Amino acid sequence: MALKSFVNGKSSDEISLLDRGLQYGDGLFETIAVEHEQLLCWDEHIARLNVGCSRLNIQPVAETKLLEEAARLVKSIERGVIKIIITRGQGGRGYATPKDNNSSRIITLYPWPDYAHENSLSGVQTRVCDYRYAINPGLAGIKHLNRLEQILARSEWEESSIAEGIVMDQNDNVIEGTMSNIFYVTESVLLTPDLSSSGINGVVRQKIIELAATMQLEVRITKTPLDALMSADEIFMCNSIIGVWPIKMIDEKPFQVGETTHQIRQSLEKYQSIPTLC
Amino acid sequence: MALKSFVNGKSSDEISLLDRGLQYGDGLFETIAVEHEQLLCWDEHIARLNVGCSRLNIQPVAETKLLEEAARLVKSIERGVIKIIITRGQGGRGYATPKDNNSSRIITLYPWPDYAHENSLSGVQTRVCDYRYAINPGLAGIKHLNRLEQILARSEWEESSIAEGIVMDQNDNVIEGTMSNIFYVTESVLLTPDLSSSGINGVVRQKIIELAATMQLEVRITKTPLDALMSADEIFMCNSIIGVWPIKMIDEKPFQVGETTHQIRQSLEKYQSIPTLC
Repeated sequence: MALKSFVNGKSSDEISLLDRGLQYGDGLFETIAVEHEQLLCWDEHIARLNVGCSRLNIQPVAETKLLEEAARLVKSIERGVIKIIITRGQGGRGYATPKDNNSSRIITLYPWPDYAHENSLSGVQTRVCDYRYAINPGLAGIKHLNRLEQILARSEWEESSIAEGIVMDQNDNVIEGTMSNIFYVTESVLLTPDLSSSGINGVVRQKIIELAATMQLEVRITKTPLDALMSADEIFMCNSIIGVWPIKMIDEKPFQVGETTHQIRQSLEKYQSIPTLC
Repeated sequence: MALKSFVNGKSSDEISLLDRGLQYGDGLFETIAVEHEQLLCWDEHIARLNVGCSRLNIQPVAETKLLEEAARLVKSIERGVIKIIITRGQGGRGYATPKDNNSSRIITLYPWPDYAHENSLSGVQTRVCDYRYAINPGLAGIKHLNRLEQILARSEWEESSIAEGIVMDQNDNVIEGTMSNIFYVTESVLLTPDLSSSGINGVVRQKIIELAATMQLEVRITKTPLDALMSADEIFMCNSIIGVWPIKMIDEKPFQVGETTHQIRQSLEKYQSIPTLC
């Protein structure tokens, strides 16, 4: 399944049982698209990883190390996915965080997932999940390794025709999908749910907010009751691997795949086509 | 640090990077006290593990396998700790749960922690944490591997004089400690916080509720505002490794180490001294 991994700089496909990533989910991760040996949005991923390390007080790993190892993995790779995991490293049986601990870094190259290109153009079907994300400001925004909530939400359906589940929080505000962020367009304004209490602040979400500003498109980060989403003119989901997928259906309700969504998708693809430092 | 481990029945100190325990914290664990080669409260630990597997829809592992491997590890061990981790096993990059997946089992023997026996008799100092546990009924009660909340709460103090932090939820109800459950005695009634929305339903917590019934002690599981705890006559914390520790101080406020607490501790020790099936 995985093609190749480095664990703390050495080629390996295993990690110590004592690693706090396994013991407690005590770490962070990034999932990075690879195209023609390029790591897309590398700077943005590293920036978010460092924010996560700072929030969890995990020793950050020097970017040069991560880049050097990721670059070795993506050599000659046309398309793939690099996943970086940073954990607090090894340390005891107990929640107290060891002092001066060395973080662990795991960098793995995965094959490019088999998504239909059609999804980007014609849109995808989605559903509203029953599961509600917890209100958890202490962990909101960062891409940490505690992902049971996403697993429970994702376990609600098996139909391959459904690309994503839309998840609300305990206060019935829409937060995001199980693996993507959500945007919607209402009266020519681009809106996206507020993530200060739940959810992951996606790298592509952040980039779209930036790009919208250059497109003279007003953006609002806002609390989003389900009604607000369901009455939108356009809706799309995004993440680092799929880019932008219009949403053409939520449960039984159809949505137009609109012009603003296409413009944002094209703008994102254009940004990502600029060669990065890798 | 760890003495010895079995991973899926084989002696090993590593696990595959693809294991969902590392990737997502997609699993459960139990921490079991060992005395004179006996696994204390084995039946109760296995029962809770199976509840957790059922809640997360993880394939349970046959008890005979777990017992056989744990028994090999505790042979000739006077005192120690057995930690069992069950994960959903290996499976892909993505939250969707693989069908017919083989769970992973990791059984590790750790040394007995160096706690002062005095803690059980004279009680310990504690503090109230600033961190608030999320309201999360979907994950409440079970001992899953997503433990960043405990790590954040535990990171609030470094003083070795403080044995535990008491954590409230987002609604300001006391839930438990970072590594223990809490009981308190008010007007001769034994009370413990309701854990239907947050927290771990500890094996020793369950056992104390049972034992109290045999002691003609009324027990109430109830929502616990901090005031209710702070005005109690006696307070104690418990888990499988420490047993019962009276709380003699919360922040600046002293508490009596009372008779009911001692009776419960003695009753628990008596129950645990009965040889188990191991």
